[in-house]
Amino acid sequence: MKNIYVIGIGLIGGSLALDIKANNNSAQVYGIDTNDAHLKEALELNIIDKTATYEDLKNADFVILSVPVDVAIVELPKILDAIHDDTLIIDVGSTKLPICNAIKDHERRRNFLAAHPIAGTEFSGPKAAINNLFQNKTNIICEVEKTAFKLQEKALKLFSELGMRIRYMNPEAHDKHIAYVSHLSHISAFMLGKTVIEKEKNERDIFDMAGSGFESTVRLAKSSPAMWTPIFKQNRENVIETLDEYITNLKRFKGYMEADDFDQIYNEMENTNHIKDILKGIQ
Amino acid sequence: MKNIYVIGIGLIGGSLALDIKANNNSAQVYGIDTNDAHLKEALELNIIDKTATYEDLKNADFVILSVPVDVAIVELPKILDAIHDDTLIIDVGSTKLPICNAIKDHERRRNFLAAHPIAGTEFSGPKAAINNLFQNKTNIICEVEKTAFKLQEKALKLFSELGMRIRYMNPEAHDKHIAYVSHLSHISAFMLGKTVIEKEKNERDIFDMAGSGFESTVRLAKSSPAMWTPIFKQNRENVIETLDEYITNLKRFKGYMEADDFDQIYNEMENTNHIKDILKGIQ
Repeated sequence: MKNIYVIGIGLIGGSLALDIKANNNSAQVYGIDTNDAHLKEALELNIIDKTATYEDLKNADFVILSVPVDVAIVELPKILDAIHDDTLIIDVGSTKLPICNAIKDHERRRNFLAAHPIAGTEFSGPKAAINNLFQNKTNIICEVEKTAFKLQEKALKLFSELGMRIRYMNPEAHDKHIAYVSHLSHISAFMLGKTVIEKEKNERDIFDMAGSGFESTVRLAKSSPAMWTPIFKQNRENVIETLDEYITNLKRFKGYMEADDFDQIYNEMENTNHIKDILKGIQ
Repeated sequence: MKNIYVIGIGLIGGSLALDIKANNNSAQVYGIDTNDAHLKEALELNIIDKTATYEDLKNADFVILSVPVDVAIVELPKILDAIHDDTLIIDVGSTKLPICNAIKDHERRRNFLAAHPIAGTEFSGPKAAINNLFQNKTNIICEVEKTAFKLQEKALKLFSELGMRIRYMNPEAHDKHIAYVSHLSHISAFMLGKTVIEKEKNERDIFDMAGSGFESTVRLAKSSPAMWTPIFKQNRENVIETLDEYITNLKRFKGYMEADDFDQIYNEMENTNHIKDILKGIQ
């Protein structure tokens, strides 16, 4: 793989570019982005070697699409039109059903692999890109059977070089489960942040009294609204379901407190404590 | 301060003992705990030098009370009865109004200082004790004017050696604000963990798909129910208020999603993003 095109040079696209360059001396990484300031930053930070346009995609061996998920479903068909027959294109968005549906009948469907590397931080933009972000992280691949054999192989080699473990799922299952383990966490953090900020207009008070526990729980509320709004929109049904269940659990907890049933409060916490064991494997 | 008695040798009591021993060569640290296994562990880990009983408290220069908050309000009057006139006793519990009320008319009220060092991890017991846990952390002191001058001075010297910054508040304000920045975070994490565990009976799925974002948001769900149940009980009114507001915010967010009002979803997140700046100061 010599000519790599990264469309969307942010945290994920930029971090992928950094690792690919580190692993392949001969790789030339081209950046495509609607944000000129990000392109400039990515050049300065040596994340990309050159900027490019869709017209150059005919020279691409490998394309990474790492843009907000609403942009991805519009752009992916155009990108498939622009590449040549042996190009591999991978998208790395946080929802998988809408993008798989968007190109299911495209004549170059077999050039595309749908992936979701479960990695990231609460930061965004090229400055947020870091080396080895994907080491020991999970990568969910959807509809692998719809990608050409040779390109599957290329993709797996790449993920292996990045240090990722692979899990195969259908896009429906991906979107349903990820709503629980990722999308809900973001909303719970955003609403926790909102609740505290609303109450504590005097921000010095928050700062002075908040400890590392609050910081950890609210961390995801730093995330980019531009990235997350389209994710929630595309995964609307699943996210609403998780919110229903989360709100029900919170109301039940509040109900036990109102009823002074602190034995049940104890049980609620104790029954959830085994999250310890579940989390042990997460890096 | 030569003879230090730590009542409750867990994460906080144990970490205080470690730092005090590191800062004062001549300090003898005695441990009192109803849990014999913890006492044994604390001896083995050199967190304490010797075990002791309440009868020995007459020899104490300084007593730290670091037990669950429901135990603290029962034990503190007995401890005040057992000490001598120049002993300083500090409690470090997460609620402050009930304990201040419990001893407000005690003849040795001036020997007591109510504190809340905002430090900790999700772990508990003597094995969780670590050095320098309190460095650069906030310590809330309540009703300082009710503590004897000389003992205030001793306490401040200790906190200064631990590297803490001091904030003075009345116990009502402490309990109200801490409900927002600490107690609510714990409930949001516990209920997030519960929601995901209920849904994902097959725990391999959680493990494989969950990333560092989930880990961070749910981290506090590892916390000890034995410690947290009495905190929620003592701070019942304030915690119920925070839960009401948090649930209202979550329902509103869900309402915007149901109404397909994703401009408002964007705004909700953007308006909360400045939590970044608020959190910058938290270690």
